Amino acid sequence: MKFLKTLSVAGAMAALPTFALAQEEVAMVNPDEFVWIMNSLLFLIGGFLVFWMAAGFAMLEGGLVRSKNVTMQMTKNVALFSIAAIMYWLIGYNLMYPLGDWAIEGYFSGLFPAVAVLEPVYLSDMGLEAADDAAYASTGSDYIFQLMFCAATASIVSGALAERIKLWPFLIFSAILTGFIYPLTASWQWGGGWLSENIGFYDFAGSTVVHACGAAAALAGAIVLGPRLGKYKDGRVNPMPGSNLALATLGMFILWLGWFGFNGGSQLAMGSAGDIADISRIFSNTNAAAAGGAVTALILTQILYKKPDLTMILNGALAGLVSITAEPLAPSLGLATLIGAVGGVIVVFTVPFLDKIKIDDVVGAIPVHGFAGIWGTLAVAITGGYDGGATLMGQIVGCVAIIAATFVLALILWIVLKVTMGIRVSEEAEIQGLDTSELGMEAYPDFSKG
Amino acid sequence: MKFLKTLSVAGAMAALPTFALAQEEVAMVNPDEFVWIMNSLLFLIGGFLVFWMAAGFAMLEGGLVRSKNVTMQMTKNVALFSIAAIMYWLIGYNLMYPLGDWAIEGYFSGLFPAVAVLEPVYLSDMGLEAADDAAYASTGSDYIFQLMFCAATASIVSGALAERIKLWPFLIFSAILTGFIYPLTASWQWGGGWLSENIGFYDFAGSTVVHACGAAAALAGAIVLGPRLGKYKDGRVNPMPGSNLALATLGMFILWLGWFGFNGGSQLAMGSAGDIADISRIFSNTNAAAAGGAVTALILTQILYKKPDLTMILNGALAGLVSITAEPLAPSLGLATLIGAVGGVIVVFTVPFLDKIKIDDVVGAIPVHGFAGIWGTLAVAITGGYDGGATLMGQIVGCVAIIAATFVLALILWIVLKVTMGIRVSEEAEIQGLDTSELGMEAYPDFSKG
Amino acid sequence: MKFLKTLSVAGAMAALPTFALAQEEVAMVNPDEFVWIMNSLLFLIGGFLVFWMAAGFAMLEGGLVRSKNVTMQMTKNVALFSIAAIMYWLIGYNLMYPLGDWAIEGYFSGLFPAVAVLEPVYLSDMGLEAADDAAYASTGSDYIFQLMFCAATASIVSGALAERIKLWPFLIFSAILTGFIYPLTASWQWGGGWLSENIGFYDFAGSTVVHACGAAAALAGAIVLGPRLGKYKDGRVNPMPGSNLALATLGMFILWLGWFGFNGGSQLAMGSAGDIADISRIFSNTNAAAAGGAVTALILTQILYKKPDLTMILNGALAGLVSITAEPLAPSLGLATLIGAVGGVIVVFTVPFLDKIKIDDVVGAIPVHGFAGIWGTLAVAITGGYDGGATLMGQIVGCVAIIAATFVLALILWIVLKVTMGIRVSEEAEIQGLDTSELGMEAYPDFSKG
Repeated sequence: MKFLKTLSVAGAMAALPTFALAQEEVAMVNPDEFVWIMNSLLFLIGGFLVFWMAAGFAMLEGGLVRSKNVTMQMTKNVALFSIAAIMYWLIGYNLMYPLGDWAIEGYFSGLFPAVAVLEPVYLSDMGLEAADDAAYASTGSDYIFQLMFCAATASIVSGALAERIKLWPFLIFSAILTGFIYPLTASWQWGGGWLSENIGFYDFAGSTVVHACGAAAALAGAIVLGPRLGKYKDGRVNPMPGSNLALATLGMFILWLGWFGFNGGSQLAMGSAGDIADISRIFSNTNAAAAGGAVTALILTQILYKKPDLTMILNGALAGLVSITAEPLAPSLGLATLIGAVGGVIVVFTVPFLDKIKIDDVVGAIPVHGFAGIWGTLAVAITGGYDGGATLMGQIVGCVAIIAATFVLALILWIVLKVTMGIRVSEEAEIQGLDTSELGMEAYPDFSKG
Repeated sequence: MKFLKTLSVAGAMAALPTFALAQEEVAMVNPDEFVWIMNSLLFLIGGFLVFWMAAGFAMLEGGLVRSKNVTMQMTKNVALFSIAAIMYWLIGYNLMYPLGDWAIEGYFSGLFPAVAVLEPVYLSDMGLEAADDAAYASTGSDYIFQLMFCAATASIVSGALAERIKLWPFLIFSAILTGFIYPLTASWQWGGGWLSENIGFYDFAGSTVVHACGAAAALAGAIVLGPRLGKYKDGRVNPMPGSNLALATLGMFILWLGWFGFNGGSQLAMGSAGDIADISRIFSNTNAAAAGGAVTALILTQILYKKPDLTMILNGALAGLVSITAEPLAPSLGLATLIGAVGGVIVVFTVPFLDKIKIDDVVGAIPVHGFAGIWGTLAVAITGGYDGGATLMGQIVGCVAIIAATFVLALILWIVLKVTMGIRVSEEAEIQGLDTSELGMEAYPDFSKG
Repeated sequence: MKFLKTLSVAGAMAALPTFALAQEEVAMVNPDEFVWIMNSLLFLIGGFLVFWMAAGFAMLEGGLVRSKNVTMQMTKNVALFSIAAIMYWLIGYNLMYPLGDWAIEGYFSGLFPAVAVLEPVYLSDMGLEAADDAAYASTGSDYIFQLMFCAATASIVSGALAERIKLWPFLIFSAILTGFIYPLTASWQWGGGWLSENIGFYDFAGSTVVHACGAAAALAGAIVLGPRLGKYKDGRVNPMPGSNLALATLGMFILWLGWFGFNGGSQLAMGSAGDIADISRIFSNTNAAAAGGAVTALILTQILYKKPDLTMILNGALAGLVSITAEPLAPSLGLATLIGAVGGVIVVFTVPFLDKIKIDDVVGAIPVHGFAGIWGTLAVAITGGYDGGATLMGQIVGCVAIIAATFVLALILWIVLKVTMGIRVSEEAEIQGLDTSELGMEAYPDFSKG
């Protein structure tokens, strides 16, 4: 039906009168409708770009684990994204925006029974006329965009806990993180909660709300789970090199690409010259911060270790991206590069620091998303973001609130999972590799192991 | 020429008056032109997203074949896409939309001589004024979008027949599939043919028209070609594990990303609030169905085999995507998740079923695109899609017509190719691997084989 | 702040009156603003697509070098892109568009002190009102788009010189190429310089300005650097097969995808029906040329070598893309396919030609980007591009000027680098592989080498 084209008899040129006629009949493009369309389009483009980050996390993590754990890492990443999609629909989205009624409207025609406040998302198909905010965007476009942020939070966790965690406890954790924990803490800021209303906390696209939140959940898990066997032995840190650095580099590039949607889409509006100019600045600053982080890690590892370290460079770029996420609009290009560069410095120094305190974070997720996320959030106040509206105190309160709440909730959940079903594979399984022991399927069965 | 910027003497602020003046002089944005631009933009974004699926098929298939056949699988995928682009231009597009004159207009200024009805596509460069439908989009944007669907059909075939088919017969088949068979059967529905006009068949983005069509062509090929050596031996099914599950996972993620364009772009319009709201719903439902398919395959393989099976999970996600493709707009998010979940169930049970009847489908293309495609098409009627306009009988007739026609034409073609030039490599070549025997080039020459 | 949604009390339907009211209050969408938004959006979409090409180059090159040099190739590609981002911001952009004042406006609020003419880019955040050209686009969107072209130039060099060049001299060269050389020669055409103003040179998206420029810099480097050890021995060319053809194929697909943004975005305008129709033609022609190049390489290598050569097919597609880049708008689809096909022929014959004269170009970058780039540029005149405005003489002058200037500047720079710090690793390091000798980090540590 949809694909059938209308046909004219007289050929292309005959269409001209029709065109002229239409010009007289309909006098204008409705400006409300225009803004609505452009905003929704921004969310859809941002949505597919941030979706792509799910692939980026999978490739980055798949490249940084040993080859005997790659199938497991792929399984976790595909599964956690899919579970996040279901949990955010069932519970998360409406929990995160508790005051809005738009997502609930028409709910009773949906598939599932209503459960008090926690109702699954129902997407109105009526467009602008049915919206409760004509200046915003279609519910579906907002939903898909927000969902991708929620899923990103869980992706951060999977990298840190790789190579020794059991599949199912990890997926149960992911379900609760994406269905309850992230929506709760995120609602404090983006759902009209106390951080945005009373504290004056500023976090444009989620240096703290998404990245430090994910890192806090990962840190709690890493503590409860313990390090990989043999990682810290006889007072030494044993390197366990990633099995596929081309794949890890691809993952980093995918994340960098997706970040244009992550930060650019968080402008939440594209229907005016000012908004598109802002998005353009955000694109440029996001790119500049990533470059700053990568170059800094390159130079620092050359100086410190006499050899550039590719995994540090990849994480430096990502730390630059996380750092600029709290305020990608206000800084100049130079300042954005500098903010990203500090992110790169943080990664180079905190990755070995975590090893020193024997917290085993396989891919460096806690430094990249946690420490650089905190830096990015505080940088908003330091660099006078939001027209000086951001205060250091406000930023600290927001950081502490979200990180502490996530950490405590995650810690309790990890301990409960550990006690009830166990979260760690057996020693034999870990040594053998999770792919054969837990899944019976090698990722690279044709290549003999060195 | 194009890149030279206009320059002002007095600087940025001096531009303000010009801006105000323009506001008075030109009173409005022409609404016809606005719709035309937005529709074309949708096709271009959809076009590059669906193009990306060509890479997705290549990576998925390259990851699921053994390492000795990876170069061949890459060669096939790049070549089939390129051949599809040439055949669809030369013949397919105008064959598929036989009643429209827009693509033929101005044809004689093109490169090739006219051949009766089968004329290569000529793209008018005149825009809206020259269009035969001012409410639609530029011919070029429609062409690139439709081409990608045609190429996807051929990509489905290449996976099923991997690891034993000769290159050239496969490419000849691909040329005829993309130049003649797909355009013919697709025109029944999308070219204003009898399925859409007389039967009331509904297939939004091609669960049957694209996916089951490709699967039918693959099934015919798999029957004529026979299974890989040693696949079914002594009454047992010998697993031949894929050589790179990270690559296969990447391919799945690429396809998932491309599907936003596949289904979203099939709305065919983005110039109104209602259309963008529809596209937003389609994005959300497409994502929900993929998630439903993946989670279902995860849980089912855990129950059935006691271990989650990554390749099943990947195929479960893809089956979810195929299932929702016939009607991604009408269902609620819950229903979309459920439709995708049934797709996941289908894959888990039909992959071993095909093995039982000794049809060797290397990547599971027939279950994913065929069986789930049929399910998705029938689900339109079952779930009351198209405002209840879709009947089970209409959906069955459409399914049977397209699948039967494609299967019979493909079967004849495969048999002709088998008799005339042979379609299968020698036993020695198959055992040795197609990369060295047929192409003299290994995909991973540096890695010794396990 | 940004994420907080406005809330209505009475529910979704209550919004209808607001909507109707708005319709009366605001009478129209400002057409200047509309064009500005659409043009900027084109740059942003084009920008992220061309950014993605950085990943494409990395994967292509990472797949075509031997496994012992993959970590180094990844390091180079991430680092060169990041350095390009910093150099283009610090110097390149304002050097390339020396006459415009828009990028300098408000400069003193930036981070770095002004340095005469060479001032870092400062992005105004004021949108349309502050623009010096209300018919163009936001500075930030233009900046990010142009930056990606600059970075692509450096990516071309990294492939040709792989497997024996030292990291730091290469990065210094990249910094000067992206900060000074490319901006200088590109400004002759795109910055309002003598090639566009006085010669009538035409190069739509950079067959010469970007691709042949990068190839000229690579050629100079390959000459000064010399071939890899053992490549040309006893009068024979020793093949050194790429380590991961799946990765190389992925890289090619990424580049093909990015090229839609490269050529499509170079239309520089999307605010009218004519412009979007042009972009649609450009998408279609770009795709057709790639297909033409790939199929030609497929057939030619079958004829010449009796076996299709995947690396030639990949390079054939890329040569097709480079060939159409100088004029992707004017040709018919048939002519575009033919222009791309000639690019494919060029690659198949010039790759062995370079080997014959003992210039060792690891990935075929000089044939693909240089020889096909020259062909594409001359083809503009041959095929009557730009309404016949392009003359063969004008195209030759432009080609020679940019290639000669880049080659001479690059040659001097490579010689200076060679004399001062040395550009080549030791024999032992080269034989051992750059990953372990220079970086101490293998790309695939788990796979034993064959």
